[in-house]
Amino acid sequence: MVMAETGTANPQTVGAAMYAVDTASQGLGIKLEAIERGYAKMSMRVRPDMLNGHKICHGGFIFTFADSTFAFACNSYNHITVAAGASIEFLAPAHLDDVLTAEAREQNLSGRTGFYDVTVTNQRGERIALFRGRSQRVKGEIVTTGMGDATR
Amino acid sequence: MVMAETGTANPQTVGAAMYAVDTASQGLGIKLEAIERGYAKMSMRVRPDMLNGHKICHGGFIFTFADSTFAFACNSYNHITVAAGASIEFLAPAHLDDVLTAEAREQNLSGRTGFYDVTVTNQRGERIALFRGRSQRVKGEIVTTGMGDATR
Amino acid sequence: MVMAETGTANPQTVGAAMYAVDTASQGLGIKLEAIERGYAKMSMRVRPDMLNGHKICHGGFIFTFADSTFAFACNSYNHITVAAGASIEFLAPAHLDDVLTAEAREQNLSGRTGFYDVTVTNQRGERIALFRGRSQRVKGEIVTTGMGDATR
Amino acid sequence: MVMAETGTANPQTVGAAMYAVDTASQGLGIKLEAIERGYAKMSMRVRPDMLNGHKICHGGFIFTFADSTFAFACNSYNHITVAAGASIEFLAPAHLDDVLTAEAREQNLSGRTGFYDVTVTNQRGERIALFRGRSQRVKGEIVTTGMGDATR
Repeated sequence: MVMAETGTANPQTVGAAMYAVDTASQGLGIKLEAIERGYAKMSMRVRPDMLNGHKICHGGFIFTFADSTFAFACNSYNHITVAAGASIEFLAPAHLDDVLTAEAREQNLSGRTGFYDVTVTNQRGERIALFRGRSQRVKGEIVTTGMGDATR
Repeated sequence: MVMAETGTANPQTVGAAMYAVDTASQGLGIKLEAIERGYAKMSMRVRPDMLNGHKICHGGFIFTFADSTFAFACNSYNHITVAAGASIEFLAPAHLDDVLTAEAREQNLSGRTGFYDVTVTNQRGERIALFRGRSQRVKGEIVTTGMGDATR
Repeated sequence: MVMAETGTANPQTVGAAMYAVDTASQGLGIKLEAIERGYAKMSMRVRPDMLNGHKICHGGFIFTFADSTFAFACNSYNHITVAAGASIEFLAPAHLDDVLTAEAREQNLSGRTGFYDVTVTNQRGERIALFRGRSQRVKGEIVTTGMGDATR
Repeated sequence: MVMAETGTANPQTVGAAMYAVDTASQGLGIKLEAIERGYAKMSMRVRPDMLNGHKICHGGFIFTFADSTFAFACNSYNHITVAAGASIEFLAPAHLDDVLTAEAREQNLSGRTGFYDVTVTNQRGERIALFRGRSQRVKGEIVTTGMGDATR
């Protein structure tokens, strides 16, 4: 989508390029805090429009937050990679103005299939959710390097 | 939250009361098509703001759509019930203006724990996602009947 | 593994060929009750050696029973197909001499990846477990037809 | 089941008491290598009777091995705790005479519900499977201390 100045894109360049077109994460106020190969860390503040009728954060937003962090981690190698499946366990509620942190860590990458675990915690370090995502690499690069998919 | 005219709330009354305060579902343009005990059907049109950088519907919105349908099905008995966990498999992409339908069906309800399967299909009947949710009943009613939790 | 008399193997022929070499299922006393394309039904009696310290059937045996039924359903097309992942929910305990029935039904098959839901019930029709398996087709046939993988 | 010499049972005492009555784990040749609060490590050699028709270890045995390790980890507090659900991802095949190691680590424990992640590796350190289990504490102790469930 953007041309890397050097032949190989580093994870930070890839992350910045992904974030620039990720309107869903932007719209939710999600920030990219860190990205390395196979790892990403993001943060999100719980807003009034994220609350459900019980005045706690709707599970869909927590899933989306974890899913975005998973996406940045599994795309960090600059190969376009999509979510094929995921599971989430809701451990504790998140409330208005809580600042959530999600960390995604690669558990396995074999061929085109990867598994990533994401933990979502609040500002007191309490665990809010556990997420496990399965990724599938498809054709293409995030940041065009001119190296195509030669490494596949 | 609202007072039922008769002593026991039927699923349609419960669904209407839930929908009235479900700003997340409303904000995504999700419509409640049908609700019975242990069953719900909803629809959602894929909007431009639901697309990711690959121009397909962000998985977070598909999850949220399935999760909402699950919530209506598992709250249909008028006992407040929350999502404790869920898994989703993404089978095929959803595109701009696709009209998605989600159907949630109860698979088991034992004590306070329930399991519900949700299938998400598009306007051609193609399966977009499979979702399985685990629910946990908590205290309280959706529609106040004055019967409290006597049936527990 | 065996040569089909006609060019295409029917599910019953495939199931019989699979069962003949499935020492694990045989060893557990699992019986194949029915098999169709994308469907299988098996039964298993809970034996003393399947009980754990709490005198209920060890979850590993219930998983293995469901997993075998899943395997017969997803191999019913005569393409060798392996389990790539699975989830199970234990709903109720199984006791000594209970006769369990598992039914596996295809939920989706797209390319080489399939999803199958298995329900395990006891002799009173009570649900013991819900299982969802993800299958991956690999090279080869169960019953050699001489048609190879031409249909892929 | 056995009387602890002191008022509180340590994890090693609990593990030994569990193992003594765990005929399923014993029958599979599973050994308990280590146990701490919220943690367990076990090993298993792949035997001829664990192979399926493709001459690789049947997934049911890998699940059972991971499930046993999960059970030791979640019972390490000496409160009787059962598996309520689990998911497994099969990453690579295990072959005859491979020596597998499973390590279970607690991810969360809140009220009576816990989540434990188990990784299964072979003798070369390659990951064979990822497992995530959900536990539910029930009444009773593994090793009788006379303290009952006073700490609940």
